[in-house]
Amino acid sequence: MTITGELIIGQTFVRGTAGDFFGIEAATGAPLPIAFGAGTKADLERACALAWQAFQPYRALPLEQRAAFLDAIGEAILALGDDLIVRAMAESGLPRPRLEGERGRTVNQLKMFAKHIREGKFLDIVVEAAEPDRAPLPKPALRRRNVPVGPVAVFGASNFPLAFSVAGGDTASALAAGCPVIVKAHSAHPGTSELVGRAVQKAAIETGMPDGVFSMLFGAGSVIGQGLVEDARIAAVGFTGSRAGGTALMKTAQARPRPIPVYAEMSSINPVILLPGALNERGAEIGKAFVASLTLGAGQFCTNPGLILAVESDGLEAFMASAAETLAGAPAQTMLTKGICEAYARGVKQLESLPAITPVSRGQSGSVTQGQAALFETKAADFLKTPAMHEEVFGAAALIVRCKDVAELEAVITHLEGQLTAALHVAASDAATAKALIPQLELLAGRVVLNGFGTSVEVCPAMVHGGPYPSTSDGRTTSVGTLAIQRFLRPVCYQSVPEELLTF
Amino acid sequence: MTITGELIIGQTFVRGTAGDFFGIEAATGAPLPIAFGAGTKADLERACALAWQAFQPYRALPLEQRAAFLDAIGEAILALGDDLIVRAMAESGLPRPRLEGERGRTVNQLKMFAKHIREGKFLDIVVEAAEPDRAPLPKPALRRRNVPVGPVAVFGASNFPLAFSVAGGDTASALAAGCPVIVKAHSAHPGTSELVGRAVQKAAIETGMPDGVFSMLFGAGSVIGQGLVEDARIAAVGFTGSRAGGTALMKTAQARPRPIPVYAEMSSINPVILLPGALNERGAEIGKAFVASLTLGAGQFCTNPGLILAVESDGLEAFMASAAETLAGAPAQTMLTKGICEAYARGVKQLESLPAITPVSRGQSGSVTQGQAALFETKAADFLKTPAMHEEVFGAAALIVRCKDVAELEAVITHLEGQLTAALHVAASDAATAKALIPQLELLAGRVVLNGFGTSVEVCPAMVHGGPYPSTSDGRTTSVGTLAIQRFLRPVCYQSVPEELLTF
Repeated sequence: MTITGELIIGQTFVRGTAGDFFGIEAATGAPLPIAFGAGTKADLERACALAWQAFQPYRALPLEQRAAFLDAIGEAILALGDDLIVRAMAESGLPRPRLEGERGRTVNQLKMFAKHIREGKFLDIVVEAAEPDRAPLPKPALRRRNVPVGPVAVFGASNFPLAFSVAGGDTASALAAGCPVIVKAHSAHPGTSELVGRAVQKAAIETGMPDGVFSMLFGAGSVIGQGLVEDARIAAVGFTGSRAGGTALMKTAQARPRPIPVYAEMSSINPVILLPGALNERGAEIGKAFVASLTLGAGQFCTNPGLILAVESDGLEAFMASAAETLAGAPAQTMLTKGICEAYARGVKQLESLPAITPVSRGQSGSVTQGQAALFETKAADFLKTPAMHEEVFGAAALIVRCKDVAELEAVITHLEGQLTAALHVAASDAATAKALIPQLELLAGRVVLNGFGTSVEVCPAMVHGGPYPSTSDGRTTSVGTLAIQRFLRPVCYQSVPEELLTF
Repeated sequence: MTITGELIIGQTFVRGTAGDFFGIEAATGAPLPIAFGAGTKADLERACALAWQAFQPYRALPLEQRAAFLDAIGEAILALGDDLIVRAMAESGLPRPRLEGERGRTVNQLKMFAKHIREGKFLDIVVEAAEPDRAPLPKPALRRRNVPVGPVAVFGASNFPLAFSVAGGDTASALAAGCPVIVKAHSAHPGTSELVGRAVQKAAIETGMPDGVFSMLFGAGSVIGQGLVEDARIAAVGFTGSRAGGTALMKTAQARPRPIPVYAEMSSINPVILLPGALNERGAEIGKAFVASLTLGAGQFCTNPGLILAVESDGLEAFMASAAETLAGAPAQTMLTKGICEAYARGVKQLESLPAITPVSRGQSGSVTQGQAALFETKAADFLKTPAMHEEVFGAAALIVRCKDVAELEAVITHLEGQLTAALHVAASDAATAKALIPQLELLAGRVVLNGFGTSVEVCPAMVHGGPYPSTSDGRTTSVGTLAIQRFLRPVCYQSVPEELLTF
């Protein structure tokens, strides 16, 4: 497929006239060929009108047809072939194996939702028969099931240009729920977005979906982004990005005449807790594994381990030495955008400048578009009194917090903000402490990982990729795994309505 | 049990010192004996501290013990005997059979949640085994389950002084979920609240619950109400009341450093749609049944049918005549408070004063504390252009909207705000129209009722008592039925955590 720089509005292509912009090669900062046209308010209006028009016929389709659409999107993405990978590599700076893996994940999660809706359990149907003879009053026949909420606005994420962008988890789960989707494409990978958007459009046409079930717009956050969230026809929002971006959308959504839910996945420092037994048994080994997790994808994972809480012990010194040495050998990696790379460097500098921070190790340095990994340490008492140390530095930077004992470690845990993940490294001798800590960790995070790191995210029914505020805007939900479909459903009860009158 | 006018803070009684107030006899407007002391900020602080302290031990209890607590609350309420009914009659003006029925519902819903948590399905446990040999990467063992969100603030409703107040649906579902509860008692029934609050406290002590699992405060909305929603230890809010009250709490909850969900059930006019076949077959009969539903509990049901949408037909005239005649014989009924009665009278007057409104019938008139039922009519075209006609008049007032045909009726439906219920009256000849309308109605409301009225609310698994904004703040939920427990839960995933390390 050819990239033209056009918006996708239902089954048509439209040249955006609100100004041109270019995809940027992450490694060089140079613009890539082909200009993209930003969308206007009129483009947004047309996409919303079509999505609203498509809503009733789309949700009325048999589930098998909806599932076939999802499967077809996966096939169409695969059919893009190496063009997609090459473009995504250029725009994101991510290496080929990572993007090939991410494409696999993207296709698999579309298939997973197709299978999930074929099974039908997501409708959560409950049927209660009438009891006409019940005293003192007869009981009517009651039936409950889930219905889709309406058209959904999806904001592509920069750090997963395939799995959490145009046809990523938010889009797949919303379409699976029966909701049309309008994507605001991320400006950091417009060409990748267009290719995937065209694949979705092709699949929609080929499987006979109503026009408007999917649109994709380029454009300014203030016009297209805010405009989407303000539009009365939009019923929910999926977003992955910064806390500033997410909270701005939350405010807009709450200020509408009819407020709507925003599912924003924002920031997380994903604490890793090292207990004494684990440190003493395998401190050096954990140090190596930690650096591998920290530097994965240039540290640009939402679940990146940015905070280590460790109890003082001989094993901690072994961990520190091993982590420092491994990190020192870590190559600099191209970051997603120049802006992200600069923000990372600023964040590291700011952390470094705090009085109670001691540098532990730096990774290898690279070009101006590459991030240099960084590891610092501090004491628990200092961490507790320095809010700046609790903030996410997006990239491969982490802070080790030395805790005198388990009690001090617990105090730190209770002072943390909500997180996507919390990891706990234990040995057999730590079992009692672990058992006491897990109830704290499950209040803190959406996922608790034992003897591992949160960066491995399975796409499956048991997954929760979510967590208390501010890691997400709504800790009752997940954006990964089959449960993500629930975000776009609401229950309806039918009283004395015979089945033959129910269409869907 | 004796009423003392004290606050209930965990296992203690505290005299509120922020000013005294009295329960008011609804029928006479006269103060009832015994002064209630409003709570201070210090009282609030102590209740929140205790609730937070109780949270971990409470949720750690075996489910059987939690269920026994809920059952014991029901027993303790029944043990209050006739004192409770007598006091509730005086404070609410509701008649004895209604309050005896409501007490039954209150006890049954506590038992229902006890049974529901004993069954354990609400935990929604999903277990996925490890696949150590999976290529390219091994799959870790994953487990997902629901955990309680934290202490919940519950605002008692005026219109259900038992079933949606101190030990009502919000409290029962939050306690069932594993969340401590702090109730802000409604000032319209303080004595009823204290009696029930004492029953909950007694049950908590007798079943060995941690101190602080339940508190009940009297006091000003600006101190106790806002203060509860602002407190960092409160994790969610349950509210039933006016739209102004609900949206104020939503704003407060969103403005917190960590926003929390507010489950506010606000206003609804519960449209009733009369199709031509039904009108022609049994217009007069429907007219009678409608007035019975309209005047139930002086029209003070959230699901009160305030709007009739009917297609012009001979049957409509039969409906109108029958409804007018039945309503004319409807006795005036004591309303919950003087304020509510005055607001009702104002609302009726305002509706009456609109240019395109024609009076159809009035019920019998009564004392200054009693509401006189009222029925008006208008044309669809006028209804569509008059927003004031779409607003709820809380009480036994309804507006009939004459629609030229089904198309005009559909236009009216698409212009309505979100509703708790929508009812549809059909005959066999209306089946095709009904089938086309139901998909519209299920987007409009949380419950669709065929050939009946929304005022009958079953407490059961299939029930949805919720609906799109502004009928509730969160249309993804219900406040009645077993599904209500989901409001106070969030999912957590455990990766590679062996079962023996999970406490709860």
